[in-house]
Amino acid sequence: MADKISQISQELKNTYISEDMNEKSLYDYKYKEPIKDYSKYFSLRNSTPCQLTEVEISTFLVSNEIYSFGAGVPSKLFFPFKELEFNFNFMGSEKVKLSNEELELIQQYSDSPGLPKLRNWCKSLQMRYHGLCDPKTPGKEWDLLMTPGSQHALDSLVKVFFNRGDSMIVERYTYGGMFAVTQPVGINFAPIEMDEKGMIPWELNNVLSNWEKLYPNKQFPKLLYIIPHGQNPTGVMYDVKRKEEIYRIACKYDLLIIEDDPHFFLQLDNPKDSNGKRILHKSFLSIDREDRVIRLDTFSKFLTSGVRMGFITTNSKLFGSIAFELNASVFHASGLTQIALEKLLLSWGDEKFDKHVENVQEVLIRKRSETIELFEKHLKGQVEYKVPNAGLYFWVKLLGIDCSYEFVRDVLRHHKVIFGLGISSSPDRSIKTPYIRVTFSYLEKEDGEIAFKILSDCLKDYIKNKKKIEHDEDVTFYNGVE
Amino acid sequence: MADKISQISQELKNTYISEDMNEKSLYDYKYKEPIKDYSKYFSLRNSTPCQLTEVEISTFLVSNEIYSFGAGVPSKLFFPFKELEFNFNFMGSEKVKLSNEELELIQQYSDSPGLPKLRNWCKSLQMRYHGLCDPKTPGKEWDLLMTPGSQHALDSLVKVFFNRGDSMIVERYTYGGMFAVTQPVGINFAPIEMDEKGMIPWELNNVLSNWEKLYPNKQFPKLLYIIPHGQNPTGVMYDVKRKEEIYRIACKYDLLIIEDDPHFFLQLDNPKDSNGKRILHKSFLSIDREDRVIRLDTFSKFLTSGVRMGFITTNSKLFGSIAFELNASVFHASGLTQIALEKLLLSWGDEKFDKHVENVQEVLIRKRSETIELFEKHLKGQVEYKVPNAGLYFWVKLLGIDCSYEFVRDVLRHHKVIFGLGISSSPDRSIKTPYIRVTFSYLEKEDGEIAFKILSDCLKDYIKNKKKIEHDEDVTFYNGVE
Repeated sequence: MADKISQISQELKNTYISEDMNEKSLYDYKYKEPIKDYSKYFSLRNSTPCQLTEVEISTFLVSNEIYSFGAGVPSKLFFPFKELEFNFNFMGSEKVKLSNEELELIQQYSDSPGLPKLRNWCKSLQMRYHGLCDPKTPGKEWDLLMTPGSQHALDSLVKVFFNRGDSMIVERYTYGGMFAVTQPVGINFAPIEMDEKGMIPWELNNVLSNWEKLYPNKQFPKLLYIIPHGQNPTGVMYDVKRKEEIYRIACKYDLLIIEDDPHFFLQLDNPKDSNGKRILHKSFLSIDREDRVIRLDTFSKFLTSGVRMGFITTNSKLFGSIAFELNASVFHASGLTQIALEKLLLSWGDEKFDKHVENVQEVLIRKRSETIELFEKHLKGQVEYKVPNAGLYFWVKLLGIDCSYEFVRDVLRHHKVIFGLGISSSPDRSIKTPYIRVTFSYLEKEDGEIAFKILSDCLKDYIKNKKKIEHDEDVTFYNGVE
Repeated sequence: MADKISQISQELKNTYISEDMNEKSLYDYKYKEPIKDYSKYFSLRNSTPCQLTEVEISTFLVSNEIYSFGAGVPSKLFFPFKELEFNFNFMGSEKVKLSNEELELIQQYSDSPGLPKLRNWCKSLQMRYHGLCDPKTPGKEWDLLMTPGSQHALDSLVKVFFNRGDSMIVERYTYGGMFAVTQPVGINFAPIEMDEKGMIPWELNNVLSNWEKLYPNKQFPKLLYIIPHGQNPTGVMYDVKRKEEIYRIACKYDLLIIEDDPHFFLQLDNPKDSNGKRILHKSFLSIDREDRVIRLDTFSKFLTSGVRMGFITTNSKLFGSIAFELNASVFHASGLTQIALEKLLLSWGDEKFDKHVENVQEVLIRKRSETIELFEKHLKGQVEYKVPNAGLYFWVKLLGIDCSYEFVRDVLRHHKVIFGLGISSSPDRSIKTPYIRVTFSYLEKEDGEIAFKILSDCLKDYIKNKKKIEHDEDVTFYNGVE
């Protein structure tokens, strides 16, 4: 399948790129008005909503302005947590104790989109880093929902947008966890070839402009899923120009975009500003003019993953559909977790948050260098890789083998060494790939010394034995003929 | 629709009950072997799983026994929480401080089914209160998953079992939040009439034995959803005999059972044992012999709702499918929330936990009496209700009106008084119902005094005006004729 498509696409390349995809034609694209009606994008599920009317919804309100006996809420007399104290030991210890009001707030049901102060902090973060306008700017209203991790955000968005058989544009290799919520509902993936800057614009344009030829009898894609910074697993960065090109093609073919950006703060090689603060690349959200981008952020990769907290940023027109699914699934993210992050972020303020981000970047730069040393010391000539300038991963080609999966299955894992498998990141499961993904954020150098040595030895043996087997087979065959 | 069914049902009653549903025939049912293969119950989604192999899954392991560079995990150097201290001020203050290992554990990704100590505590709870055997008993293996609330458990179970158009047996009135995850996927509900003991066995048997007549061209139900104690919204209790009857019919017609039991610990009128501990009714789970019951528990109604924590108890054969959806949606419930409950429950131990349950029951008994006083004082002759002997709700019939929804929409809510609406609990949206649901756990007497007075006055006016309008219409009509 993969071969057939790349073959057809090669043939088409010559035909189409010239007339249809030279830079000029691309930049000739005239932006349209922002999308007003998203109904054509919605899933059957989203179009068959729960039939609660506003009046009914209002009966579940718990508020001090009304006498509410509608909601099925426990008595505050049952609440077990009477004191809660955090210590954020960062640039000097900061003890924070919750007030009684806060303790009551987090032990009772609260609003689906999240605790107001935490949400507002995240909104100001999006304004600071992505140049968003005030969320209430007339005609440009946007909003934000706290989610129990970005994985849950994906789960909700699949519910809102996808029916079985719908198509989705993805990168040639992409986040494996995304498949866990898309494959079971039978989404058809259209992977786009990548270069060192990510998805290749002409390839994207090619697939979209020749959809019927390349994917006969498949639904035309309604959405593009992309990981712009320190792409998972390849580690590539989309620069602003590449983002503009991809975005314009998405507009031209009327696609929505899910920007899943867990590594935004893990950009490691960008120049610094006069305050020594690293300048971060613009997101797709920041260049969105037609209200096509839904952005996913998470605290998992630069702060803490175990508390499961992220947030969705979307234009206000899509807010209701997403909030419905969030509410239907968990009501809201854990109040305890929300207040812990709220207290942390508010006590830090912008300055300490930025300082934390800087520290995280420095740690990753150090670990990245250590990992490069290990590759050079133990695996010279056995692997090929590009140094990632963002994220957590090296995307490594194992030389001399055609399938990293078989190598890990048959040999490596029996030596208690584990790396990510290329196939786990591939929407097309029929391929063989020699790639592995190496997480460097978690790597301890002394462990790396041992693990990389084992990898090197196992690779040598595996290749030698494979050659031997092939050779024996030749001999056997030869004998057979004789 | 509802009328048509109850009419046909009436006709069928005489025909069928005698031969098919006398107690004898019911208790003649011979239990079969536990279900081995659940494939006929699974959704298309569950049958189209994510294609990760065990080898791939193993590459995401983070463990001290192996060198793991596969998972996309942050460095522990990023973690912000350096100290965390809880105070469970209950029968004397108990301060609990997390160890460094615990702080690291909860800030990093952890296992989908939950933190081991917390899970084990919940398992022993199920053994204590539902007479379950050891989870590893050969041939009777069962397991348990921590979920971010029972609502999320429902979301996961719908994913595992239901396709659009599948049918589900529910009580005549049931938990409104359940519709938020079932209506959007187009589930066909078959509501069963109830009496003061819950679902009526012969009605259930009747619907199932005459499915094609009653629900022509609808899928035969694969699952029964039931709320056994302090049913939401009606407050009724299923006694052991009624549970046995329902369970046997479920077996006879090969249905799975979701036992959603948020009010298990809120049984208020059962006799006490020699230690003064109230004896709680057996659950469906405790009488399950054919591995049909999946039980949902939550901490929301008797401890704290805001932290979003519950658990699913299931036989081990269904564990994998449920764990897959939990993992695909949130990876795991918040580690911070899990450890908070773990510390609370382990520091309490069984004795203080049982004491807390007893205190909760006493609080609810008091609030229930206060609510009865308010009904008698302010609404005598205007309402009809049964005193609930479990749960949080009074299910109240407003006399003299046929639709509580119109009354609340047009009048009551404008007086800042809110009760639950009967229609929000009805799978059949076409009906009119005079019922409202009154939560008494949350009610403060002084608020009740005001709110119930307002309800009384509004009812009187509403009925008077309605009569007046009808009367005026008669007159108009009469004049029209003259």
